[in-house]
Amino acid sequence: MTHKSEISRRTFIQVSGLAGGLGVCPAALPANARPAAAADDEPYTRRLAQWVVSSRPSDMPEQARREAVRAVLNWVGCAVGGSPHETVQRALAALSEFSGPRQATVLGRKDRLDIMHAALLNGISSHVLDFDDTHLQTIIHPSGPVASAIMALAERQTVGGPEFIHAFILGVEVECRIGKAVYPSHYDAGWHITGTAGVFGAAAAAGKLLGLNEQQMTWALGIAATQSSGFREMFGTMCKPFHPGRAAQNGLASALLASRDFTSSERGIEAPRSFAFVMAPRRDLARLTQGLGETFEINRNSYKPFACGVVIHPIIDGCVQLRNEHQLAAGQIERIELRVNPLVLELTGKKTPVSGLEGKFSVYHAAAAAVIHGAGGVREFSDAVVRNPEVIALRDRVTAEAREGIREEAAFVAITLRDGRRLEKHVEHAVGSVEKPMSDSDLEAKFRSLAEGVLAADRTRELIALCRSIETLRDVAAIPRASVPAGA
Amino acid sequence: MTHKSEISRRTFIQVSGLAGGLGVCPAALPANARPAAAADDEPYTRRLAQWVVSSRPSDMPEQARREAVRAVLNWVGCAVGGSPHETVQRALAALSEFSGPRQATVLGRKDRLDIMHAALLNGISSHVLDFDDTHLQTIIHPSGPVASAIMALAERQTVGGPEFIHAFILGVEVECRIGKAVYPSHYDAGWHITGTAGVFGAAAAAGKLLGLNEQQMTWALGIAATQSSGFREMFGTMCKPFHPGRAAQNGLASALLASRDFTSSERGIEAPRSFAFVMAPRRDLARLTQGLGETFEINRNSYKPFACGVVIHPIIDGCVQLRNEHQLAAGQIERIELRVNPLVLELTGKKTPVSGLEGKFSVYHAAAAAVIHGAGGVREFSDAVVRNPEVIALRDRVTAEAREGIREEAAFVAITLRDGRRLEKHVEHAVGSVEKPMSDSDLEAKFRSLAEGVLAADRTRELIALCRSIETLRDVAAIPRASVPAGA
Repeated sequence: MTHKSEISRRTFIQVSGLAGGLGVCPAALPANARPAAAADDEPYTRRLAQWVVSSRPSDMPEQARREAVRAVLNWVGCAVGGSPHETVQRALAALSEFSGPRQATVLGRKDRLDIMHAALLNGISSHVLDFDDTHLQTIIHPSGPVASAIMALAERQTVGGPEFIHAFILGVEVECRIGKAVYPSHYDAGWHITGTAGVFGAAAAAGKLLGLNEQQMTWALGIAATQSSGFREMFGTMCKPFHPGRAAQNGLASALLASRDFTSSERGIEAPRSFAFVMAPRRDLARLTQGLGETFEINRNSYKPFACGVVIHPIIDGCVQLRNEHQLAAGQIERIELRVNPLVLELTGKKTPVSGLEGKFSVYHAAAAAVIHGAGGVREFSDAVVRNPEVIALRDRVTAEAREGIREEAAFVAITLRDGRRLEKHVEHAVGSVEKPMSDSDLEAKFRSLAEGVLAADRTRELIALCRSIETLRDVAAIPRASVPAGA
Repeated sequence: MTHKSEISRRTFIQVSGLAGGLGVCPAALPANARPAAAADDEPYTRRLAQWVVSSRPSDMPEQARREAVRAVLNWVGCAVGGSPHETVQRALAALSEFSGPRQATVLGRKDRLDIMHAALLNGISSHVLDFDDTHLQTIIHPSGPVASAIMALAERQTVGGPEFIHAFILGVEVECRIGKAVYPSHYDAGWHITGTAGVFGAAAAAGKLLGLNEQQMTWALGIAATQSSGFREMFGTMCKPFHPGRAAQNGLASALLASRDFTSSERGIEAPRSFAFVMAPRRDLARLTQGLGETFEINRNSYKPFACGVVIHPIIDGCVQLRNEHQLAAGQIERIELRVNPLVLELTGKKTPVSGLEGKFSVYHAAAAAVIHGAGGVREFSDAVVRNPEVIALRDRVTAEAREGIREEAAFVAITLRDGRRLEKHVEHAVGSVEKPMSDSDLEAKFRSLAEGVLAADRTRELIALCRSIETLRDVAAIPRASVPAGA
């Protein structure tokens, strides 16, 4: 009862909300309703919208375009590889009943859905294996939200390759800049940044393909802002890949709504009661626009060669190298000794994993599987390989020692053979790191391994070729069409 | 470059996220990734799920059921009244192309959409006039998200009246308790609580009608949590009513996904990296379950008699009373003097409004229109009435004085007539306040005024009768069907 007056004030403020600024200036609000910090006056949301709207394909530097093609290739591979996953199956079982016109492809599957649902499902499948790309500075997985939104849209309207790559680069730029503006406090607060920033990227890219004007693009970013969501608490559940899926779908919806003049705040990112303030304890808004059009975040994208946390990547890299250099077989090996950064054993010290998922947390398993199979892909972290007696027998001959002073991206592997030889490898930077990026042929090999079991080999070759040559396509919908298993 | 190690750690944590707790105990995380505060151990999300799943219709007290029927009546009226609004038109123009099977009704319109889109559109239309109900303790507008979700669902499966009212009460309970647990810090931080808490209520109510088991209901609340979104910055734009619409749609999707065993965290509300911690600086988790099943938040629901902020309600109430008691006409009136709480002039002191929207921020207009029309409904805040010369002439004879010591729910009105008489009214509690709730016939009159221009009078009567007797309906879909204008 003592709070009645406060409730009454709040109630008024709430119920009169539709009128926004009209007559309700911030100074008139009770002190506890006032935001804690004030933004500068720069209209950042509009600046980003202006840039996206006015950008031309010829403004995109060659390096950015090349990296975008690599990102799209990697995204298609991850989506195809993830497409049979139970997470995708359950989402389809729940939602496909509500699909509108079957306009668009769920990559790697025979299912067709309206573009909104296709964006959702492709966003889910491309992240479900945790094998997609990473913008290291923000740990956003940038392609999932953006590519899932615009590839769906490209099945509703004809989109040429250069136009697609252009929109993709713009979307990734907006998404990663928004991420940079709030990282790390936003992530530390508990937000899954791939979902929360991804929705902006999807809206920007889709809005570009829809031909939004500056006002509409500003609204699209605002509609995206007010749907930004997703908690890190969901890691380890089906909601984790749901986040980029929903970001793709909601970003696409934002652009479509804005195309019909559905209005939002014009300061969805920078206003005191919007994204950068409500969802982040600290922020650096200047990062939104500094050097916009000059630097490109897509150039800082990275790809995972191995289907597990990056902390074990140097070990897998070293084991694969020794195996290939010496054509090793498990039976020749007496023991494998690893020397690693202490974090490796803290996080992946499981000695006797019993499932594929647990295998990802066992440096012992990863080393054994890498020596036997020469890889660290989805298959090497399957239940079957983790439970394989040959792998288990070799795993039991792996020892690991934590050493302060070994950097996280480095590792030492020593393999002692039964014939007494001792083979050593010092990995300074694992493949896939910024210093040693995956090559184009590494990416294609990864794609093939992801598509195995989903697509026939010739289909996979065709799909890789289409992705590689996307900039020459008159209609990029050829890519989703080619991703459907034969016999559809 | 100095941050590389940190980035690497973060990257590992991110990319290994799919495995959740497996091997990545919180103690292993870098300090800055650890949440600031720890929750208690009570599994609140599961407790709420258990209660919703095990609740029977006969557990609902009569008062709660009666209030629920009133809330549903008011919600249908608001949705019908809002249905021609441009916000609804633009959302339909953007999204109806993607509708699946035309299963469900957009209340007050001939459009039919799949249930997901119907939930969105009805959530929008029921809030677009800012005339819907208010749970005063949290300023949640509770019916929009919950009723929009389950009325759509009731057009996919047959739902009887008692079952509907039961699910509605449960949804409102979950929504308002979650709101209470984080209010006011959550709202002060900038979140539009009707959207952020509404998604839980929609999920719980829809999940009840779908017959989810306890595990699925726990997941449904988690899937809802990770979609919770909506900024107060959007007030004054079309995104404000979009929030309860999206909450209805996303809550419904959460329940449908959970029905197919789509998993989420089981601690979507109380975990350190989820709703109550990430989205609120302070919280009182005990409010989630204290007295659960004994007290009912629906009993604290209130309804607005007038289509404007509550701060002017006492003035309108007083003016309408004097007009009716003395059968006043504008021509008889020399002047109108108002004495009000200072907040009234701070917030609604606009002397010469030129549009309907501005009229809501003019106590002068509100008083004049109330004397002339005997009401303060949607029509009295239309452009036409605000620009009407008779209203303007009377408005110019209204004066208002701010007085400290007049409570916000009170006001004094004095009308001096040209014949020298002076009529006075002291309103202690405006109609619609907790102390003086709208009567059933007040609610029906409000409904009729909202439906005017959308439905024929006999149709409106039929619809009111159906809402009133909802507990006797074998199929509540009769209500949306009856809301469609004749000639469909």
